[in-house]
Amino acid sequence: MLQTPIAITLGDAAGIGPEIIAKAYRLQPELLAGCLVWGDVQAMRRATKLLNQGAVPQPMARIVSPKEVWAVPPGCIPVLQEGSPLPEVVMGQVSALAGAFAGNCVFSAARAAMRGEISAIVTAPLHKEALSAAGAPFNQFPGHTEMLQAVAAEHLSLPVNEVPVRMMLANEELRTVLVSIHVSLRAAIDAVTFDNVLQTLLITHVSLTKVLGRAPRIAVAGLNPHAGEGGLFGWEERDIIVPAMQAAAAKGCRVSGPWAPDTVFMRARNEQGHESEFVVVVAMYHDQCLIPVKYLGVEKGVNVTLGLPLVRTSPDHGTAFDIAGSGSADPSSLIEAIRMARALLTS
Amino acid sequence: MLQTPIAITLGDAAGIGPEIIAKAYRLQPELLAGCLVWGDVQAMRRATKLLNQGAVPQPMARIVSPKEVWAVPPGCIPVLQEGSPLPEVVMGQVSALAGAFAGNCVFSAARAAMRGEISAIVTAPLHKEALSAAGAPFNQFPGHTEMLQAVAAEHLSLPVNEVPVRMMLANEELRTVLVSIHVSLRAAIDAVTFDNVLQTLLITHVSLTKVLGRAPRIAVAGLNPHAGEGGLFGWEERDIIVPAMQAAAAKGCRVSGPWAPDTVFMRARNEQGHESEFVVVVAMYHDQCLIPVKYLGVEKGVNVTLGLPLVRTSPDHGTAFDIAGSGSADPSSLIEAIRMARALLTS
Repeated sequence: MLQTPIAITLGDAAGIGPEIIAKAYRLQPELLAGCLVWGDVQAMRRATKLLNQGAVPQPMARIVSPKEVWAVPPGCIPVLQEGSPLPEVVMGQVSALAGAFAGNCVFSAARAAMRGEISAIVTAPLHKEALSAAGAPFNQFPGHTEMLQAVAAEHLSLPVNEVPVRMMLANEELRTVLVSIHVSLRAAIDAVTFDNVLQTLLITHVSLTKVLGRAPRIAVAGLNPHAGEGGLFGWEERDIIVPAMQAAAAKGCRVSGPWAPDTVFMRARNEQGHESEFVVVVAMYHDQCLIPVKYLGVEKGVNVTLGLPLVRTSPDHGTAFDIAGSGSADPSSLIEAIRMARALLTS
Repeated sequence: MLQTPIAITLGDAAGIGPEIIAKAYRLQPELLAGCLVWGDVQAMRRATKLLNQGAVPQPMARIVSPKEVWAVPPGCIPVLQEGSPLPEVVMGQVSALAGAFAGNCVFSAARAAMRGEISAIVTAPLHKEALSAAGAPFNQFPGHTEMLQAVAAEHLSLPVNEVPVRMMLANEELRTVLVSIHVSLRAAIDAVTFDNVLQTLLITHVSLTKVLGRAPRIAVAGLNPHAGEGGLFGWEERDIIVPAMQAAAAKGCRVSGPWAPDTVFMRARNEQGHESEFVVVVAMYHDQCLIPVKYLGVEKGVNVTLGLPLVRTSPDHGTAFDIAGSGSADPSSLIEAIRMARALLTS
């Protein structure tokens, strides 16, 4: 049982956020018990009408504080209104208003999490251009992670770079944590430093130890083919990754590797009849991890931000402006993100 | 129907080569019709005894020229003896003798292919250290591909660098061709040049057009995350890959991309109920391609060398010295390599 509510932030109202949230409440009422929408009542109402054409739309309850979620009857969507109501936006079009509104929902929900009023944030997708169109402060943030990092740093009275975070991508069969994300492959290689690898290992160890109640078995992927084949195809394993693993092991991490990248993900797969050798794989760059995570289909991937003083998960897709407002968006990944947030809170 | 025999080269006799070949003949007699073993009679006899302990081993027929394969009765393994018989080697141990013998089988089979006596070569695995221990000329070749390239260049009276080859990796659901293979990730990025990408596209186009009877739809993977996201995470797509694709298209290639690496392999998967959008993906570096190819299990991957004036396929595993001689090696990948060679010859 949840002790404190989970907030689902609206995301960009011109995208699929509101409709996948409404679908999640309809499809998984028990899973959504204790969850509230941090967003806009009218945007959510439009989404429920869209999904229930001709029939009675799902009821909604406007709440003003997170704890009221417990008083909302089952089958009813609790919506906590962020600031002033958002004027209606055109679906599938970049809107500065929608960008700013979506950003404010994230900031407010994160601050509420810091005050202990909510236990986790599940974020529906933002649109980068809308954030940019919204101007300062929204245009300073590439995405959710940096916004949450800023709120956490403010709360902890630390500079942002002292609140290091890492992205974990997880689906039913694989969990991976990344040393770097959205940088060129050349820059990603340069980001494979002793400090970054060690920090990734420690964040992974601490975060998953909390979840599992014991130190997770962490597999470390090499950077080069065959993990460098003993220095034949690259020296980063020997000179950077192994020393960082040794330093992490000295702090209690259960690490193994560096393993050949082309088989470590296959070995880490957790499927029926094939138990994984590892709990999580630390990957050296974006595509090393994203290719296997997405290979079997993108519907159920979940993105988890590790290192923050709050639980944050999100679906691993974007605003899908091309289908927003059509009612056809698939809520699977959002539902999995909610399921993952609950698992991270209750395990 | 095959017109000309296929040669299966023995591989390193201290590895699993002989036993997976013997298993393939036993499990798939029809598929193996028209195939001969280019190797050593005694090494094959040891393998058949190992696999038939207590029972009658498979019969073998020593042949002296490839065309005799047609006279060998079904159920009998035709072995073409390479030079003098190989003295017995210790299973699972590096042997200069076994290395040299394995290398000579490849050279002889390749020369026979150049003379038109055999139509394709399926290569059982070599052991790099054994080749190295064998001294010149074997220690100059990192593997099969370079040996075959040297024989082809000699036959064509060309310098080796004018017989460019590329590796295609294929399993039941995915075909990919690589711009570079066994180099560090830094060197792989540097190998993403206009000339290399164009050459890869042209070799892929020409080779698969022969197989399919029409130009294949080629997907090109980007180098950087999200294929550079419009220059935000890297410039190689804009400055190198796109110009090379345009040059290839001008020569008749059906290319699309550069696509985001993290979804192009998933989109190219050819499985029941999910027809691939592409016939083949051109990948920019080893692990970009090997991670998805191996993700679902390594048993059935096949390696095809494109660009040579002969058909060459191989299983995508090594000599497995740790289990050689135990009789437990899995012949699936070798069987798929034979199946692929037949498909490349008869389609």
